[in-house]
Amino acid sequence: MSEWMEQMGQQAKAAAAVLGQLDTQTKNEALRLAADALILNADKILAANQKDLEHAKEINMPLPLQDRLLLTKERLQGIAEGMKEVAELDDPIGEVGHMKKRPNGLLIGQMRVPLGVVGVIYEARPNVTADVFALCFKTGNAVILKGGKDAANSNLAIVEVIQDVLAQMGLPAASLALLQDNSREATKELMQAREYLDVLIPRGGAGLIQSVVQNAKVPVIETGTGNCHVYVDDSADLKMAEKIVINGKTQRIGVCNAVESLLVQRDIAPLFIPALEKELHKFDVLLHAEQEVLDLIEESRKVEATEEDWGKEYLDYELSIKLVDNVEQAIAHINQYNTGHSESIVTSNYFHAQKFLQEVDAAAVYVNASTRFTDGNQFGLGAEIGISTQKLHARGPMGLEALTTTKFIIYGDGQIRP
Amino acid sequence: MSEWMEQMGQQAKAAAAVLGQLDTQTKNEALRLAADALILNADKILAANQKDLEHAKEINMPLPLQDRLLLTKERLQGIAEGMKEVAELDDPIGEVGHMKKRPNGLLIGQMRVPLGVVGVIYEARPNVTADVFALCFKTGNAVILKGGKDAANSNLAIVEVIQDVLAQMGLPAASLALLQDNSREATKELMQAREYLDVLIPRGGAGLIQSVVQNAKVPVIETGTGNCHVYVDDSADLKMAEKIVINGKTQRIGVCNAVESLLVQRDIAPLFIPALEKELHKFDVLLHAEQEVLDLIEESRKVEATEEDWGKEYLDYELSIKLVDNVEQAIAHINQYNTGHSESIVTSNYFHAQKFLQEVDAAAVYVNASTRFTDGNQFGLGAEIGISTQKLHARGPMGLEALTTTKFIIYGDGQIRP
Repeated sequence: MSEWMEQMGQQAKAAAAVLGQLDTQTKNEALRLAADALILNADKILAANQKDLEHAKEINMPLPLQDRLLLTKERLQGIAEGMKEVAELDDPIGEVGHMKKRPNGLLIGQMRVPLGVVGVIYEARPNVTADVFALCFKTGNAVILKGGKDAANSNLAIVEVIQDVLAQMGLPAASLALLQDNSREATKELMQAREYLDVLIPRGGAGLIQSVVQNAKVPVIETGTGNCHVYVDDSADLKMAEKIVINGKTQRIGVCNAVESLLVQRDIAPLFIPALEKELHKFDVLLHAEQEVLDLIEESRKVEATEEDWGKEYLDYELSIKLVDNVEQAIAHINQYNTGHSESIVTSNYFHAQKFLQEVDAAAVYVNASTRFTDGNQFGLGAEIGISTQKLHARGPMGLEALTTTKFIIYGDGQIRP
Repeated sequence: MSEWMEQMGQQAKAAAAVLGQLDTQTKNEALRLAADALILNADKILAANQKDLEHAKEINMPLPLQDRLLLTKERLQGIAEGMKEVAELDDPIGEVGHMKKRPNGLLIGQMRVPLGVVGVIYEARPNVTADVFALCFKTGNAVILKGGKDAANSNLAIVEVIQDVLAQMGLPAASLALLQDNSREATKELMQAREYLDVLIPRGGAGLIQSVVQNAKVPVIETGTGNCHVYVDDSADLKMAEKIVINGKTQRIGVCNAVESLLVQRDIAPLFIPALEKELHKFDVLLHAEQEVLDLIEESRKVEATEEDWGKEYLDYELSIKLVDNVEQAIAHINQYNTGHSESIVTSNYFHAQKFLQEVDAAAVYVNASTRFTDGNQFGLGAEIGISTQKLHARGPMGLEALTTTKFIIYGDGQIRP
């Protein structure tokens, strides 16, 4: 391990030891002051962002990515408000659950404690810098950030503003660290620093996540990619089904809980698909389907589906459509091709609904609702650090509790093991 | 990925889909029948074990390892009883928690479900084969085992007996698979089969665990190694402290929750250490300590401690001893050198007790009790699959719940996201 990683790791660990013992009031005060400081230092942050944007234009960064990189006074205001909202959330740290007296008199419970040091690797979205800090700080974790290099100036400006607030409050600046070496080697060292990092959370596209999963030695929580399905059952209220598919596909296209694939029970296809298609056509959605479905489509852009389509996350105005004979086939197809994110059935049949909920293997399984609700705020968990599509530790939207662990605490009066 | 891994993975996944939907009664019946079958087929299993033992003698396997490998009628009886006890435990699968109605009418809860396919890599202890199967099967998981090659015949015999029972009940034989290729390459493939395995649990010594952690791409739950401390505070009841140290060090030496290092508040050392030493001497414990402590030791074997001793898990009749000035120093020392397993303070001081519980970073933190209680049965969790020393997913003794995850289930009546 290189010297800089040792040093960064040791400082983060020392900071985490302090943060883990802070009372909630102090943490909330720091978050509110940091939020205010972002606004007070808007000029500095926006100037740094301007530098990143100029560079982005030089390298011809695609416009949607430039937009994700862009900070404005309004966006900064939104980031600051988000931070204050985290201050308002309940602090999970310190709660003791499941406390029980054992036959030998030992009193055993589980205390909720911070994870320790959290590493987050993300793309060129400077808002993530502040969001992630707020969630980790509220849960008593130190955080080491590795942001996209195209947002390097913006990230540094935000981090410096927050670190100043921490210093003013006598809190360790290393509560929030930013890895400024943007080389592959540096990122790899961070991903392998098991001695110092308790968890690594990648936030971004499929490429970033796979790179972290393949290279990390630190335990990873996988977030993100969603090949989400809606299955329209033969017993579905077709008007409801139409609304749910349109909402899932078009309400916001670039998000992981958008619908990418539609399954329709074969018998209702001649009735349902032409009606749905009219609505999809308003958004100019490109449809990928088998010939049997293509024959039912009049107005929309359409193309024959390949095997590859069933596993594809378009993140665009595109949708694959497949006919199935029954709910069993729908479940089997979903469990074969999905990414474990969000899946929905539209049905009026009680048994089909229960079967779908039981057997579909995903973080969130819906009956008669849009997949677009898979989100920390929508689920009532508050702000989220990501949506876990893996099964260990946290599954689905990860709120504050996902950034904590527990330890057993045991009160005895001299017990020894016979 | 090689063909055999693809095939083994696909079969395990298909088996997991079946197991995940089994009712508790069927699972319990299979476990009881499997337990009976182990006894009925004792001759076959013991004959296979005999082959392994002969080979062990040929290669001059150390005697304690030969003993771990040995199966007898009595030990087989114990294994079968353990399996029946797992049948008696509550089935966590299917429970729905935290169900809440959201403002938009969505009813959202979290259903407990199996992880899916669990991989377990372990050493030449054939009892683990049956124990791990029972825990995974009860929680609806398929399991792929990779046992130590020196127990290959014993493991295969046990697996075959259980697979026969599964087949008789019409359950997939692939619910329990044994990797019989003992090459490094085969093990490595298993550790990297992210597509098929949901989690990998290494059970064994520090070497095995480190090898898995370094080579796995599948998420790992780290179990095991314990450099456990007792800190004797100046306010301690010294007789109680003596009992707790003796119990922690000598009740069973080869286990991960045995005490390896003793911290003593400096002022009480001249009184406490000579008294303790008399008791330790009865077990011929070798003491590693600084000169100041060595001067207090009359009878026992003793040697000057090196830096290395503070981080060492002896798993033997050896103990390191260090003096500290106060509880703060004790906590700092423990958090620097421990492995996150079990730590105990002996004290009569309320504030020291609370501080130790709050600040020591470990899976189990005790006041006035032996560290030897860190164990699933002792904590009231039932049989355990291991003791997690990491912070993600499960920490401390892992009972049935550690082999499960949750999924959000959402009941709607047509909700779409505005």
